[in-house]
Order: sequence, then C-alpha cells, then structure tokens
Amino acid sequence: MSDRFSADYILRTRGDAARTAEIAAGEQSSGTFVAIPGEDAALKERSAARVELLEQVEDPGTPAQTGSAGDGPVTSWRMRISWPLENIGPSLPNLVATVAGNLAELKQVAGLKITALDLPEAFLKAYPGPGFGTAGTRRLTGVADGPLIGTIVKPSVGLTPEGTATLVDALCAGGIDFIKDDELQADGPFCPFEDRFARVMDVIDRHADRLGRKVMYAVNITGEVDEMKRRHDIVAARGGTCVMASLNSVGLAGLTALRRHCSLPIHAHRNGWGMLGRPSDSGWSYPAWATLWRVAGVDHMHVNGIANKFWEPDESSVASARACLTPLHPDHPRTVMPVFSSGQTVLQADATYRAIGSTDLIFCAGGGVVAHPDGVAAGVHALRAAWEAAVAGIPLEQAAREDPRLAAAIRAFS
Amino acid sequence: MSDRFSADYILRTRGDAARTAEIAAGEQSSGTFVAIPGEDAALKERSAARVELLEQVEDPGTPAQTGSAGDGPVTSWRMRISWPLENIGPSLPNLVATVAGNLAELKQVAGLKITALDLPEAFLKAYPGPGFGTAGTRRLTGVADGPLIGTIVKPSVGLTPEGTATLVDALCAGGIDFIKDDELQADGPFCPFEDRFARVMDVIDRHADRLGRKVMYAVNITGEVDEMKRRHDIVAARGGTCVMASLNSVGLAGLTALRRHCSLPIHAHRNGWGMLGRPSDSGWSYPAWATLWRVAGVDHMHVNGIANKFWEPDESSVASARACLTPLHPDHPRTVMPVFSSGQTVLQADATYRAIGSTDLIFCAGGGVVAHPDGVAAGVHALRAAWEAAVAGIPLEQAAREDPRLAAAIRAFS
Repeated sequence: MSDRFSADYILRTRGDAARTAEIAAGEQSSGTFVAIPGEDAALKERSAARVELLEQVEDPGTPAQTGSAGDGPVTSWRMRISWPLENIGPSLPNLVATVAGNLAELKQVAGLKITALDLPEAFLKAYPGPGFGTAGTRRLTGVADGPLIGTIVKPSVGLTPEGTATLVDALCAGGIDFIKDDELQADGPFCPFEDRFARVMDVIDRHADRLGRKVMYAVNITGEVDEMKRRHDIVAARGGTCVMASLNSVGLAGLTALRRHCSLPIHAHRNGWGMLGRPSDSGWSYPAWATLWRVAGVDHMHVNGIANKFWEPDESSVASARACLTPLHPDHPRTVMPVFSSGQTVLQADATYRAIGSTDLIFCAGGGVVAHPDGVAAGVHALRAAWEAAVAGIPLEQAAREDPRLAAAIRAFS
Repeated sequence: MSDRFSADYILRTRGDAARTAEIAAGEQSSGTFVAIPGEDAALKERSAARVELLEQVEDPGTPAQTGSAGDGPVTSWRMRISWPLENIGPSLPNLVATVAGNLAELKQVAGLKITALDLPEAFLKAYPGPGFGTAGTRRLTGVADGPLIGTIVKPSVGLTPEGTATLVDALCAGGIDFIKDDELQADGPFCPFEDRFARVMDVIDRHADRLGRKVMYAVNITGEVDEMKRRHDIVAARGGTCVMASLNSVGLAGLTALRRHCSLPIHAHRNGWGMLGRPSDSGWSYPAWATLWRVAGVDHMHVNGIANKFWEPDESSVASARACLTPLHPDHPRTVMPVFSSGQTVLQADATYRAIGSTDLIFCAGGGVVAHPDGVAAGVHALRAAWEAAVAGIPLEQAAREDPRLAAAIRAFS
C-alpha cells in the first residue's frame, strides 16, 4: 500500500454505516452529489478513496452530534479510509484537507474522530522530521541518562525580563536541566522576547561555566513566520539551545516553515489541544495528530502527565507518550521526546516510568520544583532521586528513608 | 477598554461557576496552582485576566465533557474574560494561545465554546486585513451588482489539467462569474498546479477578450508557506485574480505570511471547520473564529448555505454570513464576502437574500449550475434570474413563468 495513505476513524452514525462510510469516502475524493459532465468511470476509479475497514464497536450511548440525519439509534464503527497518494502528493496541509476536511460535516455522520494516520514513505522523505530528538537533546544538555528534569517559568505572565532571569538563576543554581517559557509569554510588552532571552542566556552561560553543561531554555518564539525565523536566528546566534512554539497558534504551514529554517530543537506546545482531543466524537486522537508534527519535525511534544491537573485520564497521557517514542517507519522513526507536565511531582515518577518504560522524556514540574519546602535545589534533587528510585525499582518511601529532601517533597506534595 | 481584549464563552461546569471562571482566568494569565517565589500582588494585578461577565443560561442537558470534575448537575453560563493587551501585544498566534489555550482542558470545565472575540484597535493596525473584500472583488470580476454566481471544479480530484480547462471553458461560455478549485486539489501529481493554472488561464483570457471581463478563478494554492508564495507569484504574474487556501490546513501564521506577501484576493476555505464548529460544547462559534482570519486579511469566507447538504442548521449559516458583513470596528470594518456553497440551487436564492439582506456575496453551486437539464449556460442564467427575482421581491414561481430556463431549474432541483 506504499502509494496510498490512510486514516482510521471512530465513526458514529444513525444510518446505515456502510452507506455513510461510502458517502464520507466519496465526499473526500471523486464523489459529487450530482453526475457531472467530464466524469468517467476510469477517472473516478483512479482517484477514489476506499473504505478499507468498517467494524462495529461499542457505542458510548452519548447523543448524536448536532444536525445528524436519521432517527435510528447511534452506532459506532472503526473505519479506515485510504486514498491514492497521487491525489495530493506528499503535502501535509493537503493531507489535512483530505483526512480531516468536510467529512466531519456530513449530516450522515453523527460523530467522527481520527484515531490513526498511516503515511507512505514519500511523506517522510518530503519533510525533515525532528532535527534533534532524544539523542540531540541529551547531547545539547549533557544529560546522558535519566529524564531531563525541567520546569516552567511561572507566573505565566507578569514577570519582567529581569524577574525571569532571577528565577532562571535560582533554577540553574538548583541543578535544573531544562526550563521552558509559559505558552502565554512570547513577546509581551512587559517582557519582550529579546530582552528576556538575552538576560536569561547571560544567566545560563554563567552557570554553564560552572557546570560544564548548558541548561536548555525553550524560549517561546510563537508568532508570525518571519518573527519566528528572526527570533530563532537570535537564539541560535547567542548560543541558545531550544525554541518553543505553540502548534495550534502557529499551524502546520507556519511550523513547517520554522522547521525548514531551524538549527535548534523545537519544543512543541500543544495548548488548545483540548478542543481537538477532549470531545469524544470529534477531532483527533493525540497519536494521530502528533503524527503530523512528527513528520514535519518537532523534537519535544507535550503529553500532559499522570495524575495531571487537567481533565485527561492517565491512560490517555500514557498512550500519547508511548506514541511519541514509537517509530513511525523503520527507516524514519520520527520519535520525539514526550514532555510531561501539569501538576507533576515526585509522586508521579514511579508510575510514569512503569507506564512508559523509558527515561527518554522531559519531566516538567512547576510547583513540584520551586515549592519544595527546602528550596529549588532540594526540589530538583528530590525529582531526580524519585526517578532514580523508579528506574532502580526501589519504592519511593523506601528511597526517602535515606533522603530527607525526597522525604520532604513527598510530605509537601502528598 | 481599549487596552484589553476579551473573549466570550459558553462555559459548562458541574461545580461552582464563579470559582470555575476564576480558575479559567487564572490558568490563562498570572495564576499558578502553588504560590511561587517572585510573585507579588502588584505583578499579578497588572497581568491578571478578569471575569467580566458570568450569567447563567439554559443548559442543553447533554453529558459533561470527558474528565469533568464534580458530581453536581451541569450548568451553562455566558462568560466573558478580558486580558491586558500588554500580556501578549497585538499578535494573533499569541491571542489564540491565550483565549483558546489550556482553559478547555481544566477538569472544572465541563464544556467550553468561544462565542465572540473583542479586540482593541491595536490588532487591526498590526494586521493588513482584506486587501480586496467586496469592492475589490467586484472590480476584478466586473460584476457591479448582485451576487457573484460561482461554481466549483468537480469532480474534486481525478480531472487532469486539460480536463479542468475543458470544464472551465464550458463554465466561461455559460456566463459564470467565479470558479473555485475543490479543496482536495492543490498540486496533485495527476493535476499539477502550474499546468492546471496555465491551461485554465488560457481559457479565461480567451473568454475575457470576448466578454470584456475576466472570470475569477480561485486556484487552490494550499501548501507550505514558500510554496504558497511561489504559486501566488505565478498567479499574479500570469494575470490570475484570486488564490484559495484551506485555513485549517495552513494555520494562522502560514495564512498571515501568505497575506503579507499577497497582491490578490484570498479565497478562504474552511474545510475541517466541522471539528471546531459542530460540537456544541467545544471549539469556536463561526463569527468568533472568522474574526481571526478577517483581522489577518482574507477576502472571501465560506459559510455553507441555506438547506445545505451538511449538518449545519440554516440559522447557523445565516449568522455566519451576517457576521462576515458586519464591521469589526468603525475604522477597520474588515468585512469579507460570504461564500455560500453545498447543495445550493435556484431554490435557495430568495431565502438567502431575505436572511442576509445583501448581495455582497458569492453564491457557489456545483450541481446547481452544471446539472441544469439545458446545460451550463442555462444553469448560470437560472441562478442569476432567481437572484434578480429575489432582489425584486418577485416570487420564484412567478419569475419562472416567463423564464423557461429558470422553470427547468426549479423542476430539476426540487
């Protein structure tokens, strides 16, 4: 099937599922609602989408989407549709228009969620993919083993460049590996990008002289394409080692333009993902959606975390992280580092390691670092100790008996 | 409130609404879940988002979104949150991260839909807005009055460049004003952009010599940023008068990059919109979402149509079209031409005119043009006649008594 691409869906319908699937495939390829001059059978056959799989699954019993036709009960189906690559060529924006276009608007469709994408190698050859991934990120940070222990600049907004640099100084002194901007702060007038970045890098460089390694700062460059390129160039010229962009704010063509210009790891923030991922019968599953950005070429992707502060169940975050670490293709793995965040503390290290089976990840804690009762250094130490215990298979409470800072973290965050 | 921007939402929650609203506002500004060194009251006050309105509305009684906290009944609220412009500056991508970011993922939120955006003038000064709009589109097409009668190249995929040009020849001969590519065809190997565009323009130029006006061809240039710019330049150099891009495929930064480079009207296709617009308690209302693209600067926006083939109720399409024609700001109206499509025929002209009260629109019919029993010219004539009757207040059946081609269209499409 190397010359076709396919998408898997959970389809809900109140009508005949086979007929609905054919309508969806027709809408997204050579179908029209009225016979048209110029159509002929060979032309339609060459370009037609095919329903490759239609298999009933349990329906959740929730209401049909607004405007669904029919008055029968809603049924749920696993559906796979494939298209000839020749319809679009290996173009991610045109892939999105094909697999995630008008079909969700069909009245015969009572719910539609994209659960997987399968792309031929042509896509993987047409896009650069991650420039750094885990190996490049470890090299740039000097963290050979274990997760990168990271944190987020908080408060999200309101800090001046000086305030940000002061916070970063404390974090670097405390032994952090990775610091990211909040997604709400890119180039606000109170905290302009250039001034913030320059002040933070002065601090990072100073600590690098001491540490022999450079703390990675994912500076938020989200903006217009030219702005992002210009900011990237400033970061690269000054010796920064990472840039961050909000995927849903920038979009696929903008992110790809950044990637093709970029000589640094791209830290991909997924804010706004809730609109696509949370509805049970609309949007995308995270593994399917992440495929787009992995092909385009980001290096780190947010996956939320176990026992997070948001809506997402643990099994969903775990599936997302595992997907990030699973090759897309034997010759083009396009694996990316999953980024855990949202209410993460020492308490989640063991469960995360057991669920993921890897330390090729970034474990970001905000309060979980800076709200340690003995300070930032103790917070970073405790997180690292919790992960070392997890990897060694030592229960957290047992490890804490000989590590007062870990013990204090457990008490503080329980 | 010129130094703040705001978003309106329908918020659903199973908890205390005032508390949920404050959590959402805090999540999207200076709030954190744990007190952090460096925070102080003045800093928080300067950057805090404010809940400006919280007013209970009737709840639809549908289930809460996945992962909603609490076990109380779900209630629905109109909520407005405002932010200081200084948090982000007039940047559309950072606006999206702020108004449509993580707040939809809060477990206290059981549903969240953005219903309106109110932006200070700084945004309207920072972005070019539509370069052509209605006046420019009328000038380029030579259609001084009435709607532009348009159609879509069908089948969506499968036609060669020659086949497309043959179809366009028939459409131009038939008197069409506007032709758009299907969103599924941009630069597929069977129908490469350059060859298709060149052949279509040869046809359009030939008819322009005869007509004294040029049929507008919205050629689909959807792709990477550099591809779109290059294709735009080819279109502009060859005398084309419109380019089309799929908004959800390209994204906001990509579209803006195209706009800043562009010397032609941008025909904005909304395929994929169903994922954001159809769920009742997630995503965006169309008027709110369209604000982003109107500020950025597209010229034509798809709104579906009355009695369309998709899920959307008439009142929703009508509200979308009215929003497109309603100024955003007295000095920066940013109005765009609404594009009606999806199963449109002579039968919808009167209802559309009565609902919209304007002919500053593009009325696209696929089958409604080419499937007229007397051919394309009769199809175009009948649509124009139906609109003339609507504007004159003459009932369609009455107008058809003296117009056999209109009468045939009514019979064919009823």
